[in-house]
Amino acid sequence: MDRIYLDNSATTPLADSVRAAMEPYYQEVYGNPTSLHSFGQRARKAIEDGRESIAADLGVSREEIVFTSGATEADNLAILGAAMAAPKRKHVLVSAVEHHAVLHAADWLASTGDWMVERIPVDRVGRVDPDTVRSMMRDDTVLVSVMAGNNEIGTVQPIEAIAALCRERGALFHTDGVQAIGKRDLSLDGVDLFAASAHKFNGPKGTGFLFIRKGTPVVPLVHGGGHERGLRSGTENVSGIVGTAAAVRLAITERTDVVERLLGYRERLVREVLKIPGTRLNGQREGGLPHISNFSFQGIEGESLVMRLDEHGIATSTGSACSSPDLEPSHVLVAIGVPLSMAHGSLRVSTGRQTTEEEIERFLSVLPNVVANLRAISPFKVGE
Amino acid sequence: MDRIYLDNSATTPLADSVRAAMEPYYQEVYGNPTSLHSFGQRARKAIEDGRESIAADLGVSREEIVFTSGATEADNLAILGAAMAAPKRKHVLVSAVEHHAVLHAADWLASTGDWMVERIPVDRVGRVDPDTVRSMMRDDTVLVSVMAGNNEIGTVQPIEAIAALCRERGALFHTDGVQAIGKRDLSLDGVDLFAASAHKFNGPKGTGFLFIRKGTPVVPLVHGGGHERGLRSGTENVSGIVGTAAAVRLAITERTDVVERLLGYRERLVREVLKIPGTRLNGQREGGLPHISNFSFQGIEGESLVMRLDEHGIATSTGSACSSPDLEPSHVLVAIGVPLSMAHGSLRVSTGRQTTEEEIERFLSVLPNVVANLRAISPFKVGE
Repeated sequence: MDRIYLDNSATTPLADSVRAAMEPYYQEVYGNPTSLHSFGQRARKAIEDGRESIAADLGVSREEIVFTSGATEADNLAILGAAMAAPKRKHVLVSAVEHHAVLHAADWLASTGDWMVERIPVDRVGRVDPDTVRSMMRDDTVLVSVMAGNNEIGTVQPIEAIAALCRERGALFHTDGVQAIGKRDLSLDGVDLFAASAHKFNGPKGTGFLFIRKGTPVVPLVHGGGHERGLRSGTENVSGIVGTAAAVRLAITERTDVVERLLGYRERLVREVLKIPGTRLNGQREGGLPHISNFSFQGIEGESLVMRLDEHGIATSTGSACSSPDLEPSHVLVAIGVPLSMAHGSLRVSTGRQTTEEEIERFLSVLPNVVANLRAISPFKVGE
Repeated sequence: MDRIYLDNSATTPLADSVRAAMEPYYQEVYGNPTSLHSFGQRARKAIEDGRESIAADLGVSREEIVFTSGATEADNLAILGAAMAAPKRKHVLVSAVEHHAVLHAADWLASTGDWMVERIPVDRVGRVDPDTVRSMMRDDTVLVSVMAGNNEIGTVQPIEAIAALCRERGALFHTDGVQAIGKRDLSLDGVDLFAASAHKFNGPKGTGFLFIRKGTPVVPLVHGGGHERGLRSGTENVSGIVGTAAAVRLAITERTDVVERLLGYRERLVREVLKIPGTRLNGQREGGLPHISNFSFQGIEGESLVMRLDEHGIATSTGSACSSPDLEPSHVLVAIGVPLSMAHGSLRVSTGRQTTEEEIERFLSVLPNVVANLRAISPFKVGE
């Protein structure tokens, strides 16, 4: 039995073309990009070409791309680096449905006692209302962080409107773009900081980048040899950077086709899964990220559901992959007002470029029985 | 003409066995280690096996290994994380010949105004005298950082004696082990923190680890999903971790043989190069790291020397690779009292497991002419 991977929001397999692009940078072009000799200069060219390529794909300048070890580090550099660079503005706004990389970085700021952090509430589908942001902004707001698309429920945020508000008030706007690259139309106009992680779009793990708009004051978190224009020291992960650039290019090139196909899968998933009694869709019905569908099943523990599906060879998740080992209900589901009993019974199905229609059908043929079996042994009663 | 790589202190090519070990973790076992399903659990097993393997090789416990994006991050986590975790001790000692990752992290602490950082001087070969450390320690010394082996001149430090002193005074002892793994006999007895980077010993770039002795208070620098027991958030670089473990195993297994071979090369290099007039050896004549030889040539710019050798297909460096683009003389050479004119004419030759005797001989056949030619066009006069 072929296993079916429907957890592409957690991570994705490396695409063949990305892998091929990285290939020469393990044993052939292995120099340190900082070295003066030809081994080093070939490596330097590879990472600068990668930077150029990503900048072109995102419509920004190459000096605005800073490579990091992934989006968690990029989010931390954005939040902590921008906050620490601003001596006077001490107020930070983050949406209630941000990734933990943003929330916990902001929590750390608050824990020092030097910053005040507030969470922007969201509506029942997880959307931030720009008017709410407007009402919460203060003269000393240094940074507003609202993600481009949510990793758990796929909700897409009105980042253009929020970015415009920030500009008016002289605050910086950061957006976590981890789930958005290749999945939504994305303009960085007005965005000051934008974080991405290659492994979420068929690139390698351990690498990502932060877009930092020219002139945005950011202090580094990692000090050393002064790499990445002093913003991120440490020998550059050459193959990882080359792979990141190849993955961005692939995601942008394929976007229209992939989005159309994944939207089709999502339509089918939502329609069929909601036929199971005691089921709800978490997040936007329309207009969200094409690859994420999040459901709650009354009377079931999400963990049990994931484990049972795994026995059928199907990989899914409950809550976000980064927090699922603990059994706290997802902060995203709590923020959109999912009752605790339903929040505990959540299932995230996330498709990817390699997902096939047959896989969706097999998932749909297995799910109703798994749900019914779990409910049969559940101590909770399912009503409508 | 085959190119000759004598810059292994800057970075190394991936070993075949390391590459083979990483192979399955790109497209086959690609799950997120945090995921509950079998894709995730296979990835989890890979990184936990890697942790176990490294711990066994270093004679420590698996819970004491925290994976990072490399040694620069690991050094920062050690220095900043330990300093910030200690509310009362505000004094930090770092040797004058530390890597910039340590020095600049310590500088950042000093820049906040909350910590006092002092640099421990070294002798003419770059060695820290434990008695000097003893005399500089204070009741509020939180951390002492002295590297296991120097990346520019190869000097080996008496870390056991310094670790013992730290223990007596209740200070933590950190050692940057980047150049030491596989190159010197290494005991972590008494060491509280130890940083390593895989790409310095034929592992992949973008990955490394920090050993943190059980019970050592360290706060994280990167916040998020709580990976690595909360000390380093961010999706684990699975292939990188597997590669790091394979590289540590290879380095430890081969150490005796490789060290003997590289010491032979070094003997030959030092003997022959010092025959060139107006030349000095920087660092220890005996007892240093086997793979690093550092020379200064009167009347020559190191950059020119590296570039000329590169034209002959030979890769070397001047200063450390991480700082060589700027033209400041190396802080290590300044610390050991090399006159500025000689510090500017430094050349680091660093061998690796793949270096051959033929390569050493070709380097030695080329170097005297290159030096003579550069001196012929130099405005400086060479005397003895």
